[in-house]
Amino acid sequence: MKFFHILYLFQIFFIFSFFSFAHGADFCVADLKAQETPVGFPCKSPSTLTVDDFTYSGLVTAGNLSNIIKAAVTPAFTPQFPGVNGLGISIARLDLAVGGVIPLHTHPAASELIVVTQGFITAGFISSANTVYIKTLKKGEIMVFPQGLLHFQVNGGGIQAVAFVSFSSPTPGLQILDFALFASDFPSPLVEKTTFLDDAQVKKLKAVLGGTG
Amino acid sequence: MKFFHILYLFQIFFIFSFFSFAHGADFCVADLKAQETPVGFPCKSPSTLTVDDFTYSGLVTAGNLSNIIKAAVTPAFTPQFPGVNGLGISIARLDLAVGGVIPLHTHPAASELIVVTQGFITAGFISSANTVYIKTLKKGEIMVFPQGLLHFQVNGGGIQAVAFVSFSSPTPGLQILDFALFASDFPSPLVEKTTFLDDAQVKKLKAVLGGTG
Amino acid sequence: MKFFHILYLFQIFFIFSFFSFAHGADFCVADLKAQETPVGFPCKSPSTLTVDDFTYSGLVTAGNLSNIIKAAVTPAFTPQFPGVNGLGISIARLDLAVGGVIPLHTHPAASELIVVTQGFITAGFISSANTVYIKTLKKGEIMVFPQGLLHFQVNGGGIQAVAFVSFSSPTPGLQILDFALFASDFPSPLVEKTTFLDDAQVKKLKAVLGGTG
Amino acid sequence: MKFFHILYLFQIFFIFSFFSFAHGADFCVADLKAQETPVGFPCKSPSTLTVDDFTYSGLVTAGNLSNIIKAAVTPAFTPQFPGVNGLGISIARLDLAVGGVIPLHTHPAASELIVVTQGFITAGFISSANTVYIKTLKKGEIMVFPQGLLHFQVNGGGIQAVAFVSFSSPTPGLQILDFALFASDFPSPLVEKTTFLDDAQVKKLKAVLGGTG
Amino acid sequence: MKFFHILYLFQIFFIFSFFSFAHGADFCVADLKAQETPVGFPCKSPSTLTVDDFTYSGLVTAGNLSNIIKAAVTPAFTPQFPGVNGLGISIARLDLAVGGVIPLHTHPAASELIVVTQGFITAGFISSANTVYIKTLKKGEIMVFPQGLLHFQVNGGGIQAVAFVSFSSPTPGLQILDFALFASDFPSPLVEKTTFLDDAQVKKLKAVLGGTG
Amino acid sequence: MKFFHILYLFQIFFIFSFFSFAHGADFCVADLKAQETPVGFPCKSPSTLTVDDFTYSGLVTAGNLSNIIKAAVTPAFTPQFPGVNGLGISIARLDLAVGGVIPLHTHPAASELIVVTQGFITAGFISSANTVYIKTLKKGEIMVFPQGLLHFQVNGGGIQAVAFVSFSSPTPGLQILDFALFASDFPSPLVEKTTFLDDAQVKKLKAVLGGTG
Repeated sequence: MKFFHILYLFQIFFIFSFFSFAHGADFCVADLKAQETPVGFPCKSPSTLTVDDFTYSGLVTAGNLSNIIKAAVTPAFTPQFPGVNGLGISIARLDLAVGGVIPLHTHPAASELIVVTQGFITAGFISSANTVYIKTLKKGEIMVFPQGLLHFQVNGGGIQAVAFVSFSSPTPGLQILDFALFASDFPSPLVEKTTFLDDAQVKKLKAVLGGTG
Repeated sequence: MKFFHILYLFQIFFIFSFFSFAHGADFCVADLKAQETPVGFPCKSPSTLTVDDFTYSGLVTAGNLSNIIKAAVTPAFTPQFPGVNGLGISIARLDLAVGGVIPLHTHPAASELIVVTQGFITAGFISSANTVYIKTLKKGEIMVFPQGLLHFQVNGGGIQAVAFVSFSSPTPGLQILDFALFASDFPSPLVEKTTFLDDAQVKKLKAVLGGTG
Repeated sequence: MKFFHILYLFQIFFIFSFFSFAHGADFCVADLKAQETPVGFPCKSPSTLTVDDFTYSGLVTAGNLSNIIKAAVTPAFTPQFPGVNGLGISIARLDLAVGGVIPLHTHPAASELIVVTQGFITAGFISSANTVYIKTLKKGEIMVFPQGLLHFQVNGGGIQAVAFVSFSSPTPGLQILDFALFASDFPSPLVEKTTFLDDAQVKKLKAVLGGTG
Repeated sequence: MKFFHILYLFQIFFIFSFFSFAHGADFCVADLKAQETPVGFPCKSPSTLTVDDFTYSGLVTAGNLSNIIKAAVTPAFTPQFPGVNGLGISIARLDLAVGGVIPLHTHPAASELIVVTQGFITAGFISSANTVYIKTLKKGEIMVFPQGLLHFQVNGGGIQAVAFVSFSSPTPGLQILDFALFASDFPSPLVEKTTFLDDAQVKKLKAVLGGTG
Repeated sequence: MKFFHILYLFQIFFIFSFFSFAHGADFCVADLKAQETPVGFPCKSPSTLTVDDFTYSGLVTAGNLSNIIKAAVTPAFTPQFPGVNGLGISIARLDLAVGGVIPLHTHPAASELIVVTQGFITAGFISSANTVYIKTLKKGEIMVFPQGLLHFQVNGGGIQAVAFVSFSSPTPGLQILDFALFASDFPSPLVEKTTFLDDAQVKKLKAVLGGTG
Repeated sequence: MKFFHILYLFQIFFIFSFFSFAHGADFCVADLKAQETPVGFPCKSPSTLTVDDFTYSGLVTAGNLSNIIKAAVTPAFTPQFPGVNGLGISIARLDLAVGGVIPLHTHPAASELIVVTQGFITAGFISSANTVYIKTLKKGEIMVFPQGLLHFQVNGGGIQAVAFVSFSSPTPGLQILDFALFASDFPSPLVEKTTFLDDAQVKKLKAVLGGTG
């Protein structure tokens, strides 16, 4: 008798829940084929989701360090990991060989929090007041880089370093200073006028980084 | 003469208004057939709207109380009442027969504010610090349940009770504790391990609520 | 033995919980004696709070209807009900005698949702496109008024009416059109120039509503 | 050799950048043909954008002042200037001939900041507490009008005036008081009941502004 | 000559920068002695800050695992790490011995993103639709837990496990289900009525967890 | 008689308004002597405010252009113009002599919208995808610079230029690239490592801009 009643409760609630709450409250896994909006991608249908929509294995292995900066950034932002769409958070993996460097850059849309999981990383950021905050972090230590400020990470020890960096947005953006200046078609006279860098310096870096103009 | 001038004003402004302000500033009644985004549904065309898009009669009558909890929740969230889409507010009606109970639950995406309109309701919530705030509310009294915290409502008197609960989101979400644990496919060993509940208790409630695993 | 272990768990968690989570996550009951910020009042110390901080009885009785509009608005905003501070929601009670009217007004900082609990209320709002949406609501019917738009409520039947109106902000603000124009020190020539109202009309209403200038 | 390595860096980063950051972090130029959402329009594909998507020439020339208010408002909101979509800012140009007036109005979704660039403008707003703040601004002076409050601008000198007004939203909305009341189909009895204006006054303004009902 | 001019530039900009931008734009390190607001603590004076305000070493070592859950959570939220105040992000360290478990809990104010850095962790969450998403994560794998939903983590392998969990808020809050129910003064009859748990079960867990009522 | 009734109405509403709405809904003029919060300064008491709190004359005259960049930025942010506190908007005046330049910089916390009011200004910004958007704007033309991206303005004609730039925040922040790199105590080896600039270039600019380290 009680069993029957509780089953009935189940049916009542199931119907209630299905019609009322099937939309939008919990999460919004990105449908990357749909047209993006100012706050992220439209949602995949909840009925199609599995645990694989909320997990990601792309950060398991180190990025390729056989490059000039001896470093790699492997992101898990909305385009790689659609499960974070709309949830205000994302993550990336940093790998730095000995001598490796993540060049000066900003994230226009997010604050960043680093945790070192192997080796030593010297990290820093520059405030609007032109104060520089730098520290060499060891395994387990963390540092926060406020939104939009120039910051960097370099290998700070004699061994390969690994870190995870979290962001306060699923799409933090990334503006690498050297690429903005020297790998773009930013005309050299304007680069020089707006940075006070010498013409020779600008042309040298444009040559190697592929910038035009 | 003045009449003519003001008519002209009317025409000027009408054109101005039509082209400049036909989009987005006021409201965004949900087009439930379109694909949801992280902040709600795309908007129906303003030209198709009538007052019926901004009103709703679904809360006029009590929900069906012939169930084991002797209670009913009738929501007016975006799926039922598309007019609240994007406006940061929604509402639901609670009906509690004598002995009725709205089981422990959370709204992941909204704070809630109850106003009792008939009878007596004993309501409460539990803070992160594990403090329990409970009171029996009479007609006209209100209580606020902060976002994401476990809370409940039970009939607190000898007569049928009615209340309206407002939410700080058009899609507040709803996670009913018992259904999360015992009406889902949450494997019993994991339920027990993560709640310290006895195996017999878990299996008993799973049996009646339909949970598997 | 197990008992002892679980007690130990309790102690561990209690310490953990106390130090880590005593601040800010759940709620922020307004300390009305402290200096307000752009997002509300500073918080009362959580240790001083009781259930009375989260409940309010000021809406139990009807407001005084012995006035010219035969209506009363009784708010439960942050100043009256500090528990809603920071939670994105608040509520007020409307009472309308036969012939009662809540004059045209806006809430600069919130959308509003009305539910009628007694009698009939004719409510409406005007969009930026100058479309008017009006309906007479009966008991249990609801209507939403999007943020910042002019709206009104008048008694729509032969009996006294009551409603509760919820807001998407704990401090929705209130700008009553007639008081802005005719109970302020807005100079009459500017009132007339910016509204096209006749001088006689402006002076008549200023006289009775107490406006100067 | 080093040249080769840096080119390699370039390639590595180019691929990295292309796949990781092609979406959403920087801007979202409105695709006005797509369906609007509560927070703006979906984005045009970044690959189709040029500098013309981020610039606008529509405010170069004065609006037509040959109308009864001797004034013109020329907006650069999302519908006119899709580049501001999602960026939290927009702008408009005000032109006021001698005797010109921008009638009392509100922006439901934005605060406004005026800077006078020619002539003199007498501007003001009314607070919820019915305090009126009025000042005659000269070239270069600024004034802020908080979100949702009634405000106006009139020519405050003997020469034509120009100003630019910025908004804290790409779609601030606009509700002109006179048009809401007298150019809409707001039934006259309700206008009179909710504003205390005389029947003759309402009918006079409705006649000239085209209102019905 | 040029040297002098550029020094002059420096002076001009220094003054400009000092007066204009000394406040608020970059960060707001919490002054934990000041009174909290709905959005965090007031800021320490920028002039007193060093790199130690933006770094934290409290997550370097494992928490104490000699407890009944064989697990520890070590947070770096605003109270422990004031540098994240106002920045929309925080982090914590999880340590799980073999057999360790982080019991079912919610964070009312944040989404969570886990990255496993040692061992195996079986993690899961339950949606409003009562779907359970569970996966055993290995080193380097990540999973996201949407805001406000019940979730858990248990050691998923034969070795001690470590993970870092990031949050989309500097004060995510934490509501542990068992502590809310059985370590609080939630009256047993109400616990039973709102959870359908047996009286014996409730009393047993209250006894060991210290709950009263 | 009616006169008396309406006066009564006035009294009723005055009391109602005074007690209910004296706080927080409309604006929050910064009390710069109080301690800042993550979202701005605490509010001055509304009763002390005059129109001068909402207006500002500091942008009337051109800044001093007798400096090496032949340019000046005159801000009206919260510290200069406390009226914008909490309102999501601010403004600054740009003056550029012939040959003047506002060097590459970012605003970490705001998008920017420029309107040229005299002369010609060549402005541009660089996206995360390293695309450069540049245009020479004439009087009345506008351009938007999305939040956090590097941008610049240089005099683009043979006459002195003036512009007003609006921001989507009352405290947009300002990070000038050259000052971050060469006027700070950012150690030269780290500058070189994280920017690929030559040692000679770094030392040259540090010498003239006053950087140390």
